[in-house]
Amino acid sequence: MTSFCHTDPAAKIGENVTLGFGVRIYGNVEIGDNCQIGDFCVIGHPSLKPDCAPLKLGAGAVIRSHAVIYEGSDIGPHLETGHHVVIREGAQIGENLRLGNYSDIEGACHIGDFVRMHSYAHVGRGSQIGDFVWLFSLTTLMNDPLPPSHISEPVTIGDMATVCVNVQLMPGTVIGRGAMIASGAVAHGQIPPAVIISGTDGEVAGPVHFLMHMASRTRHPWHKHFADAYPERARDRIAALGAEIDAEAADL
Amino acid sequence: MTSFCHTDPAAKIGENVTLGFGVRIYGNVEIGDNCQIGDFCVIGHPSLKPDCAPLKLGAGAVIRSHAVIYEGSDIGPHLETGHHVVIREGAQIGENLRLGNYSDIEGACHIGDFVRMHSYAHVGRGSQIGDFVWLFSLTTLMNDPLPPSHISEPVTIGDMATVCVNVQLMPGTVIGRGAMIASGAVAHGQIPPAVIISGTDGEVAGPVHFLMHMASRTRHPWHKHFADAYPERARDRIAALGAEIDAEAADL
Amino acid sequence: MTSFCHTDPAAKIGENVTLGFGVRIYGNVEIGDNCQIGDFCVIGHPSLKPDCAPLKLGAGAVIRSHAVIYEGSDIGPHLETGHHVVIREGAQIGENLRLGNYSDIEGACHIGDFVRMHSYAHVGRGSQIGDFVWLFSLTTLMNDPLPPSHISEPVTIGDMATVCVNVQLMPGTVIGRGAMIASGAVAHGQIPPAVIISGTDGEVAGPVHFLMHMASRTRHPWHKHFADAYPERARDRIAALGAEIDAEAADL
Repeated sequence: MTSFCHTDPAAKIGENVTLGFGVRIYGNVEIGDNCQIGDFCVIGHPSLKPDCAPLKLGAGAVIRSHAVIYEGSDIGPHLETGHHVVIREGAQIGENLRLGNYSDIEGACHIGDFVRMHSYAHVGRGSQIGDFVWLFSLTTLMNDPLPPSHISEPVTIGDMATVCVNVQLMPGTVIGRGAMIASGAVAHGQIPPAVIISGTDGEVAGPVHFLMHMASRTRHPWHKHFADAYPERARDRIAALGAEIDAEAADL
Repeated sequence: MTSFCHTDPAAKIGENVTLGFGVRIYGNVEIGDNCQIGDFCVIGHPSLKPDCAPLKLGAGAVIRSHAVIYEGSDIGPHLETGHHVVIREGAQIGENLRLGNYSDIEGACHIGDFVRMHSYAHVGRGSQIGDFVWLFSLTTLMNDPLPPSHISEPVTIGDMATVCVNVQLMPGTVIGRGAMIASGAVAHGQIPPAVIISGTDGEVAGPVHFLMHMASRTRHPWHKHFADAYPERARDRIAALGAEIDAEAADL
Repeated sequence: MTSFCHTDPAAKIGENVTLGFGVRIYGNVEIGDNCQIGDFCVIGHPSLKPDCAPLKLGAGAVIRSHAVIYEGSDIGPHLETGHHVVIREGAQIGENLRLGNYSDIEGACHIGDFVRMHSYAHVGRGSQIGDFVWLFSLTTLMNDPLPPSHISEPVTIGDMATVCVNVQLMPGTVIGRGAMIASGAVAHGQIPPAVIISGTDGEVAGPVHFLMHMASRTRHPWHKHFADAYPERARDRIAALGAEIDAEAADL
């Protein structure tokens, strides 16, 4: 169904792309095959930056209603968004990013493969996010150490790290691979791999394998009990990366 | 005014329903009489779940612009939403729910009668919310005790409880009737009726009737000074339920 | 491009105003010259208040997609909004307000000139915000000291104050000019000019000129190193106001 859509004739659109009701596609876009774009979305929104590269949207994306994606980003296959998300220009995004409702990717950032975010996640400009990272609701990745200023010290998050609900990542935070930032924590500085950070002082509370759900005897790290939540093509990578991080943590 | 709307002919729409500009109504919906649906709303959005029940939207709803409501929920009369809200499939919602802007109801939950939420409230899947509950801005109801995992331990909130701004309700929290969770608190575990919870340790700070606004000599519980903010048909229920909770608290 | 827009013929629209795709303009509006209104915006949304004044939108506004602005507000020239913002009725707003995505201005408030907000800022009804104020992401300005109640004690923020990420401003907070509320803080009561407030107890941590970014030797107050981020016409005012606040702070 493509009624009441407005597609710039310069837009390059792949095979079998479906548009919802009231979609606007700007001209500076290259949309891969088999994408689904929901109602009232804006795709390829113009940037204020001159001579912006096109938005490259990989095959198989599912973009839910009221999303806004700017020109000038390069997004891998199988993006899946919730409703009302925003992705600004200059984002380099891997395979199968999943975004919760109202997520706000401020652009000029790098996001790896198979990253998941929940609602109201805010990724400040310049952030570097590895593969298989989780950002839960209300997570904020800051970048200005002396607000307001012209200084930019973005956050870096290692592969397979988990950032829980309502966490603030202070400017310049570097999170080691497989670390877990507990809900409500304020993290800063250099965080070792596979540790738990908790509290508003962001202290190390122990290694992640201390985290256990007693009733079900489920424990961290998550790659041992949650790999089936990913597409099958990702599971070997999860196992290999998980083993690597476990070894790295054992060495500390 | 129904210009530039797209209504699936299978949708069942009551008498005297008004649609804004650019509304999309999917087919699997039953909309009651006298509903008002704002501009750029999406009603009956398809779920990924197969064989989803229809969206049943009770009479007299006021749904403001850019809202998204999925199929598969059953919503009582007199829903009133702010702008940009999302309600996912599987929500069982009572009478006269009022939602603030950007509220996110993740579905598969139960919400009682006359519940009020402010902006950016996030209700995780499986949550159980009683009657006359308040959720203020940025409240998050979590459900995964070992994120990310397949374990689900949703939150339960008793009747007439108040959850203030920027509160995190940890997975499995059970809030007693009439309790008040102070702003910025992190609540967890079993919370008795009619107590105040405060701080990031979620400790009991005292009974709610200790809460007093000195200048106006107004004090908690709220049902004694705020029942007039509800429709007249609700006031006897508020008085009866309030008296019950007061008695329950006095017994502790 | 004005296709699929719906403009009430009663709306007063200036010269050289551009509308995106799928814009709705209600009748009770006066839009200044050279405004740009993005896709799927709703301008002049009806208020529930009877006999509401028109929305007066100053010249040169840039309103990004999916924004909702009510009738009954008076907004100075050069408003610039992100996506999905909401501005309710009764807001008196100065020159060149810039709003981040998902900002929620609840109305009946006063906002000075050259104010900047980032994403998910929530300004409660009745708030008073001075000139050159910064509100970073997830900032909440509360107004009800005994929620829920009919009592209203809104927040007042002095000129050039900075409120960092995820700050809660408790009802009735009065922030002195040039103060800085650190990220994650909970502020309350009377806050002196040009001090730093931090922590969930909202204590004074020192004067703002203690704040320094070591690597670049940049220090607070920001008016000495960040005035160039404002339009040229604002810079003399920043210098004069900054000097005034510095003198006021030195007297303490």
